[in-house]
Amino acid sequence: MKLSMGGKSIILRLELQTEHLHFGQLITVITENGGDVVAIDVIQTGANWSVRDITVTASEQAQLESITSTIKELPGVRLVHVSDRTFLLHLGGKIEMKPKAPIQNRDDLSRVYTPDVARVCMAIYEQPDNAYKLTIKRNTVAVVSDGSAVLGLGNIGPYAAMPVMEGKAMLFKQFADVDAFPICLSTQSTEDIVAAVRHLAPAFGGINLEDISSPRCFEIEQRLREELDIPVFHDDQHGTAVVLYAGLINALKVVGKRIDEVKVVVCGIGAAGIACSNILLAAGVKELIGVDREGALVRTRRYANPMWNDYAQRTNPNELTGTLHDVLEEADVFIGLSAGGVLKRADVERMKQRPVVFVMANPTPEIHPDEIEDIAGVIATGRSDFPNQINNVLCFPGIFRAALDCQARTINEEMKLAASAAIASVVTPQELNKLYIIPSVFNQEVVRRIREAVIQAAIRTGVARRIPREFRQPEQPVVSELPGSR
Amino acid sequence: MKLSMGGKSIILRLELQTEHLHFGQLITVITENGGDVVAIDVIQTGANWSVRDITVTASEQAQLESITSTIKELPGVRLVHVSDRTFLLHLGGKIEMKPKAPIQNRDDLSRVYTPDVARVCMAIYEQPDNAYKLTIKRNTVAVVSDGSAVLGLGNIGPYAAMPVMEGKAMLFKQFADVDAFPICLSTQSTEDIVAAVRHLAPAFGGINLEDISSPRCFEIEQRLREELDIPVFHDDQHGTAVVLYAGLINALKVVGKRIDEVKVVVCGIGAAGIACSNILLAAGVKELIGVDREGALVRTRRYANPMWNDYAQRTNPNELTGTLHDVLEEADVFIGLSAGGVLKRADVERMKQRPVVFVMANPTPEIHPDEIEDIAGVIATGRSDFPNQINNVLCFPGIFRAALDCQARTINEEMKLAASAAIASVVTPQELNKLYIIPSVFNQEVVRRIREAVIQAAIRTGVARRIPREFRQPEQPVVSELPGSR
Repeated sequence: MKLSMGGKSIILRLELQTEHLHFGQLITVITENGGDVVAIDVIQTGANWSVRDITVTASEQAQLESITSTIKELPGVRLVHVSDRTFLLHLGGKIEMKPKAPIQNRDDLSRVYTPDVARVCMAIYEQPDNAYKLTIKRNTVAVVSDGSAVLGLGNIGPYAAMPVMEGKAMLFKQFADVDAFPICLSTQSTEDIVAAVRHLAPAFGGINLEDISSPRCFEIEQRLREELDIPVFHDDQHGTAVVLYAGLINALKVVGKRIDEVKVVVCGIGAAGIACSNILLAAGVKELIGVDREGALVRTRRYANPMWNDYAQRTNPNELTGTLHDVLEEADVFIGLSAGGVLKRADVERMKQRPVVFVMANPTPEIHPDEIEDIAGVIATGRSDFPNQINNVLCFPGIFRAALDCQARTINEEMKLAASAAIASVVTPQELNKLYIIPSVFNQEVVRRIREAVIQAAIRTGVARRIPREFRQPEQPVVSELPGSR
Repeated sequence: MKLSMGGKSIILRLELQTEHLHFGQLITVITENGGDVVAIDVIQTGANWSVRDITVTASEQAQLESITSTIKELPGVRLVHVSDRTFLLHLGGKIEMKPKAPIQNRDDLSRVYTPDVARVCMAIYEQPDNAYKLTIKRNTVAVVSDGSAVLGLGNIGPYAAMPVMEGKAMLFKQFADVDAFPICLSTQSTEDIVAAVRHLAPAFGGINLEDISSPRCFEIEQRLREELDIPVFHDDQHGTAVVLYAGLINALKVVGKRIDEVKVVVCGIGAAGIACSNILLAAGVKELIGVDREGALVRTRRYANPMWNDYAQRTNPNELTGTLHDVLEEADVFIGLSAGGVLKRADVERMKQRPVVFVMANPTPEIHPDEIEDIAGVIATGRSDFPNQINNVLCFPGIFRAALDCQARTINEEMKLAASAAIASVVTPQELNKLYIIPSVFNQEVVRRIREAVIQAAIRTGVARRIPREFRQPEQPVVSELPGSR
C-alpha cells in the first residue's frame, strides 16, 4: 500500500483475542510509536474476540509503518487489513442518483409516475424539443469510455476505467453543476461504440468521450459528431487543446510575442498532439512543425499513420526535416505531448531567447523544469507540483455548462477558442508572470467566464438552439412557453 | 390542460401593464372567484410592466377555470401561460447525479481523480470482482426502454419515454435506496438493443427492462439473461407477475382455497399475461387456461404468435375450447390483463362461489368492480382508486435491493416466488380481508421483507456472489478484504 500524497492516515482492521490482549495495550503501542488514534469502530464481536477498525494518523509515513509492523507481532492480534482513505472514498462508488423531489404520498407518486406522467410524455411526443425542458437531457452529459487508454495505465478495460469516469462525473457536478453519468463500454470495436453511443444518446444533452485510444478516437468522435445533434467532445483531445492554448495566450504575453509570428514545434503527434496543433492553427499560428518518432512530419513523405499524412499537409510550411533537435533551431514555442526525457537542455538552447516550453508528458515531463529554469521564458507542465499546470479539469466543466445552457448542437472551433480566451482572461495583467499563466482549477471564476464566452460563440456561429435570458435583448419580455400550458 | 387527480393548484404566468392594472385588483379577482393566492414570484420587470408567476389554489377545478377566464379579459394583463404542478415537477428532469463526497481541495482532487485514482483502477484491473466494491456497480441499476410500449400510450419513442424512466429511478431510490439511471434507446431493433445493453452493462449491477413491446421483449430479455452475468428483469412481465401472485396468495386465504386446487383463467396472453401464467404454474396451479382474441388457447391448434403455441403446450390440461364465457364455467380465479369491458357480470356468475377476480387492465378494468361487488369473493385492480391495487412498484425496488446486496448473477423463479410471499406476508392474518389483500406501496415493511426473502432464495439457489453479513453464520469473524489493503 502506498499512502497518497495528502494523507498520513490509515485504518487498521484488527481481530483481537481479548484473552491475550487488552485494548489499552494496543493503544499504548500506537501512541508510543508516534501515532494518534482518531477513531475506533467495532465491526463484530464474539465471546472472547472482536474485530475493530482503528483509524490512526501520524506526521510521518514511517511512523505508520512502524505501528503496523509492531502490531502484527503482538500476541492475540491479527491484522485483517490496512486500508487507505483513497480506497475508502471509492467504496460503493463515488456518485449517486438522487430524486430532486421526495415521493411522500399517493399524490406525489401519481405526478412523477403513472398516471399523471403520461401528460408529460405526450407533451414530449408531440414536440420532441420539450425533452430539453422536461427531462434530464437539459443538464446531463454521458462520460463515455471503452477503457482502452486510461490515464497513463493503458488498455485496462471498462471495469477498471470506471473510477476515472466516476471521478469525472464528480468534477462535472462540483465545478459546473452538470449531471454526468459514466458509461464504460465492454467493446473496443469502433462500429459497436458508435452504435451504442448513438442509441443511448436521447437521455443526454452532450457526450464527453474519454480515454479512448488513438487512432480509433478520431473516427468515433467524427462519426458521432455527424450522426448526433448534441455535442460530442473527446476531452483528451480538445480539453487538453483548449487549456494548452489558454496557457499559450498568457505565456506569449509574458515573453511579448504574437501568436501569428511564433515558430511552434509540437512533439508527440497522437490524439492530443493533433488536437493541440489544430487549435493553434485555428488561433493563427503560421509556422507549426510536428515531430514524432520519425522526426519532423513533412508533406513530401508518406506515413503509415493516415493521421500523420493529413497532418503533414496542413503544417510545416517550410518543409523542415530532421530530428527534434534539428527543427527546434530558432523556435519560439515547444509543446510536448510525448514522453519523459525526450527534450534536452541542448535542444532548448537552440530555441530563440526566452523560449516558451510546455512539457506535458505525464507523469514525467519531457524535461525536468529545473534543468531549464534559467533559460526558459515560461515553463508549463501537466503536473500539480510545478507552477502552470495544464489541466483539462479547467475546460470540460465550463464548456459543457455552456453547451447545455444554450442547447448547443455541437462544440465547434470558435467555442473552443472562446473557452481558451476565457480561461486566460482569469489571470489579470497585474497577476500575470512566468510562474502564473493559468488559473487554479479551484478558481470559481473559470467556469463562469468559459460559460459566458462559449455561449456567445455558440450564438454567433448559429449552433445554439436556445438563447439564455441574460444573452437576450433587455427590456423585452421574452418568456418561454411551458409545455403543458394552455 | 387537465388538472391531475390530486392537485387543485395552478400557476399563472402573467404579463402586467402596470399603467392599466394594479396588482391588488388582480388579487381581488382571484379571491372573489374562490381562489387563494399562495405564492407570487416576480420573473421580469420593466419600466411599466412586469411578468409574475401567481400560484393559485382552489377547492374546485371549476373555480380555477373561472379565475383563468376572468383574468384573460382584464385590461392590462396578458396570460402568458398556465402551468400545473406536474409539469413544474418535471422541469429539467426529476433526478440528478450527486458526488458522495465534496472535492474541496487539491488533496481531495488527487484522491478521486488523477493521480491517486490510478491505484483504484489497478485494483479492479487485477481483480475484476472489485468493481462491486469500488464502483457504482454495487448499487446501480439501468432502467432501459426503447419507448415502444409506454404505459397505456403505446410506441411514443425514447424521448417521450424518459419521464417514466426517470420516475422509476426516483422510486428505486426512494423506496429501496437503489441508484437507477434511465437509458432510453433510439432503436427498436432487437439486435441493436441487445448489443447496446450488453455494451453498457459494466457500470451496472442489474438491468431493469421497461416498456418494450411484445414479442420483442421476450427475445431481448432472454438473450441478455444469457449474455450478461448480472440480473436482467423485464418489469412489465415479472414485476406484475410477482405482485399478482402476492395478491393471489392472500385472496385465496380470504376465500379458503388452495393454489393447487383452483381453476384459473388468464385473459390477455401478452407479455404480462404470459409472465403471470408462468409464476402461477411455478407456484403450483394445475388448471390454468389462457384466453385471448381467438378464445381459449389449446395445444391442438396452431397460432401465428409463436409465444401462444408454446403457452398452449404448457397450459389448459383439459384442452378446453371456446370463448372466455365458455371457459369461465366453474373457474375459481379470473386474471385479466386485457382491455376494459372484456368481462361481463354474466361471465362472473358462471364462476364458482366467491370467485377471485383480478381485473388489471389499465386505465379501465375488464369490469367495473361495483358491478360484481356482491358476488365476488375478492376483487383487485391495477388502479389506486379501488381497494387491492396490483402495483409493480411493490416489487421492483425490493427485488433489485436484494439482487444488488447479494450480487446476484440473475433473478430466478425462486427469487420471484419468494418476493411474492414476502409481499403477501406484510398483511397480517388479523388485517387480512377481501378489501385488504395487498400492502400499500408506502408500507416500509415491503422492501425489507422482500430483501430478506429474495436474498435467502438467491443463496439457496446458488446465484448469490456475496452473502451479506446478516445471512452468515454467527460467532465466526468473516471480514472481507478491502482492495488496496496489504
